[in-house]
Amino acid sequence: MNNHPKFAVIGGGSWATAIAKMLCVNLPEIAWYMRNQDAIDHIKTHHHNPNYLSSVEFQIQKLKLTSNINEAIAYADYVIFAIPSAFLSAELAKMTESLEGKVIFSAIKGIVPETSLIVGEHFHDVYGIDYDNIGVITGPCHAEEVALERLSYLTIACGDANKAKVVAAHLSGNYIKAKISDDIIGTEYAAMLKNIYAIAAGIAHGLGYGDNFQSVLMSNGIREMKKFIRKVHRMKRNINNSAYLGDLLVTGYSVFSRNRMFGNMIGKGYTVKSAMMEMSMVAEGYYAAKSAWELNQKHGAKTPIIDAVHAILYEGKEARKVFKKLTEKLD
Amino acid sequence: MNNHPKFAVIGGGSWATAIAKMLCVNLPEIAWYMRNQDAIDHIKTHHHNPNYLSSVEFQIQKLKLTSNINEAIAYADYVIFAIPSAFLSAELAKMTESLEGKVIFSAIKGIVPETSLIVGEHFHDVYGIDYDNIGVITGPCHAEEVALERLSYLTIACGDANKAKVVAAHLSGNYIKAKISDDIIGTEYAAMLKNIYAIAAGIAHGLGYGDNFQSVLMSNGIREMKKFIRKVHRMKRNINNSAYLGDLLVTGYSVFSRNRMFGNMIGKGYTVKSAMMEMSMVAEGYYAAKSAWELNQKHGAKTPIIDAVHAILYEGKEARKVFKKLTEKLD
Repeated sequence: MNNHPKFAVIGGGSWATAIAKMLCVNLPEIAWYMRNQDAIDHIKTHHHNPNYLSSVEFQIQKLKLTSNINEAIAYADYVIFAIPSAFLSAELAKMTESLEGKVIFSAIKGIVPETSLIVGEHFHDVYGIDYDNIGVITGPCHAEEVALERLSYLTIACGDANKAKVVAAHLSGNYIKAKISDDIIGTEYAAMLKNIYAIAAGIAHGLGYGDNFQSVLMSNGIREMKKFIRKVHRMKRNINNSAYLGDLLVTGYSVFSRNRMFGNMIGKGYTVKSAMMEMSMVAEGYYAAKSAWELNQKHGAKTPIIDAVHAILYEGKEARKVFKKLTEKLD
Repeated sequence: MNNHPKFAVIGGGSWATAIAKMLCVNLPEIAWYMRNQDAIDHIKTHHHNPNYLSSVEFQIQKLKLTSNINEAIAYADYVIFAIPSAFLSAELAKMTESLEGKVIFSAIKGIVPETSLIVGEHFHDVYGIDYDNIGVITGPCHAEEVALERLSYLTIACGDANKAKVVAAHLSGNYIKAKISDDIIGTEYAAMLKNIYAIAAGIAHGLGYGDNFQSVLMSNGIREMKKFIRKVHRMKRNINNSAYLGDLLVTGYSVFSRNRMFGNMIGKGYTVKSAMMEMSMVAEGYYAAKSAWELNQKHGAKTPIIDAVHAILYEGKEARKVFKKLTEKLD
């Protein structure tokens, strides 16, 4: 009937909903998996996701909605994962359908807690998928602005440039510009690390530091990110491209970022536990801080900001004291 | 009586007031010139500047206030200029006192309209002052946060590192960390160019672009700034240091920035003339856009953002159309 590749979106959150919206501009049909059957029923009846980006209207005939992950995977050539990294392992455990021959794209900005790997590495190491069949969709992009159809730029990275082009072409539209990259490891680490810096920005704000300090923190953050990523995967990249610096800024300066909000509560004196309970959702940077710190014990990049966030979240250190020391290390 | 070098601050605005406050922490006395005799009288009686940062209390016995620029210059070893660049020539025309043997520091973030030179170059070319006696005080630093004593980082650049150290030492304090740099030309261009990018950020906001685009604009902005400065003055510098990227961010993300506000009005449909009248103060970036664009006609760096701002402010082009085209050039 058509020559379009078949796409499945895995996840029911705001970023998954935004990706489904973008794909529906260019495709006659997509598969969309979410755990929550009530949400699926609501979308079928009311044509919008009841929980996330509920202003987005879907043409319902384009959606093959399912609460069975295997149905979605069986349907697709390209499978886009957009669920919190903390839930990825549990979802993948339900999988009986093979991923062989599928192209896997991650729109997850985090680390898989069980393996301490970024998502691309997780699919490669645990599922034996070739890097030519693994890709990353990264911002800078708040899902909320996709809902509002505000101009946004995506970076689509894949070992195989043609596959990156296919995904970029099917996400692009009036308000989405997608460019491709071959830095699949670096873009994914950037997307994960930026959440740690957003927590740091939140902590600083909560402690009463102002905009002058925030700009110093971000300027040190991007330098630190560059050092970290270079240790993990050395290649020629411009850290000031949108996928790295842009992504850091859109998160670090966002008052809506879950990670920044989480950090802000810590800075204001909440314990880690009570901040997590209060938010009742996952701040990806919480897990990222642990994994990045541990990984860096091996690599030894100079990462005073990551170290500070780790000390506060995992070593029981007092935020005020840790940041006081941190300010001496920044410039 | 003491071994302190003698400092004079030239200017009565918020940044001059912030610098006077910082110096008074470390010095028993400073000279402070401002045009406005009423403001001087007010400070003498009420111990605060009536017009700018009026929450800042001065120990009045530390201030040698004068409305005669020659008195201030005659007094000082180090003269810090902190007046809008548009007024610099007029102030310097009043000067009968020689600058010979004085160390001149610029805290001005702009270009001298009459000569299209940054302030350091202006003093060098027009007054024959050696670069070893010229320096720059740069942020990222909103004066308002100095008033609030929020932690801020300054970069002090001078051809002579010892003089940079002297100025850094006398500005530093509990809430000010000052580091030195030898990039006197680059830091000053960065301080001037960032105002153009802040105007661009304001225009984008006024036109309805969101945070996703803003982050792309800033990420392209720092890359463009790097290319521009490299053409003007080639040396080893990390453009992501606070004096460059940090300064761009604190201005580009500030809702209080005059330049961003000015851009915002343009984006919302004000003419350039009416936006300037409405603001009743100088947006440094307005002059910077002209000078930077003209300078770059010679250098030929790729500067789509500067070109766009110039087209809107000086070529009568419609902001909406110019930005639509600009979005195609960013990535």
